[in-house]
Amino acid sequence: MEQTAYGLRISTPLAFDQAVAHVTDALKAEGFGVLTTIDMQAKLKEKLDRDFRKYVILGACNPPLAHRALEAELEVGLLLPCNVIVYERTASDTVIGAMAPLSALGIVGDNKELQEVATEADARLRRALAAIEGADVG
Amino acid sequence: MEQTAYGLRISTPLAFDQAVAHVTDALKAEGFGVLTTIDMQAKLKEKLDRDFRKYVILGACNPPLAHRALEAELEVGLLLPCNVIVYERTASDTVIGAMAPLSALGIVGDNKELQEVATEADARLRRALAAIEGADVG
Repeated sequence: MEQTAYGLRISTPLAFDQAVAHVTDALKAEGFGVLTTIDMQAKLKEKLDRDFRKYVILGACNPPLAHRALEAELEVGLLLPCNVIVYERTASDTVIGAMAPLSALGIVGDNKELQEVATEADARLRRALAAIEGADVG
Repeated sequence: MEQTAYGLRISTPLAFDQAVAHVTDALKAEGFGVLTTIDMQAKLKEKLDRDFRKYVILGACNPPLAHRALEAELEVGLLLPCNVIVYERTASDTVIGAMAPLSALGIVGDNKELQEVATEADARLRRALAAIEGADVG
């Protein structure tokens, strides 16, 4: 797993659609439901008639963590849900990235309860990606 | 308009539902479609049986800006769409907040094209909120 400036990233030999299905399951195992899906390829075609690679943005939400975060800081909805992206490099090389809540919270500042929630969300997202990375996709 | 650590915020005497409708229109006037809507009140009730104030998270996307951003930095999907939140304080006091793309991009670093896109998105979101703040809501 790579840590980028603002997120976590893995690549997998899974095909794009399989990668989307696997990450959805892996997120579920960590308590995150996928509340929103934006198909950027379809959207850019529809709105701009541009061809773009397969690319989705999933909005993942762990309700107990979201509730704790909102109780700690009402405006934290600006950083929810946790974004997970999946995009195709080739037919057998797909990238999965997740927002690192701890990076996002760098913006929010010094709220201790919020930092605890972010730490837990971060650990769960990391485990979800690690589960895909570790799976035998042979 | 207030600038918070990670976003822009206004309050309006509009009732919650009206505020959601108005901000949707104001975003549209600036080229942002609302691609996703998360009703946190409903979600927290459904998943946790918790009562929470009226609160929605809107995912707003300006397709030409999103396209430019993704061309400049493929992983920027982690910061898309631009979140706009609407929540109720009282029946005649509703808060509208928008992610400030320039703050979010503090995370992303030094990509010049991305900074230009963020500057434009920031200006457009600011105008959308200002339009609501300035409207006669008598």
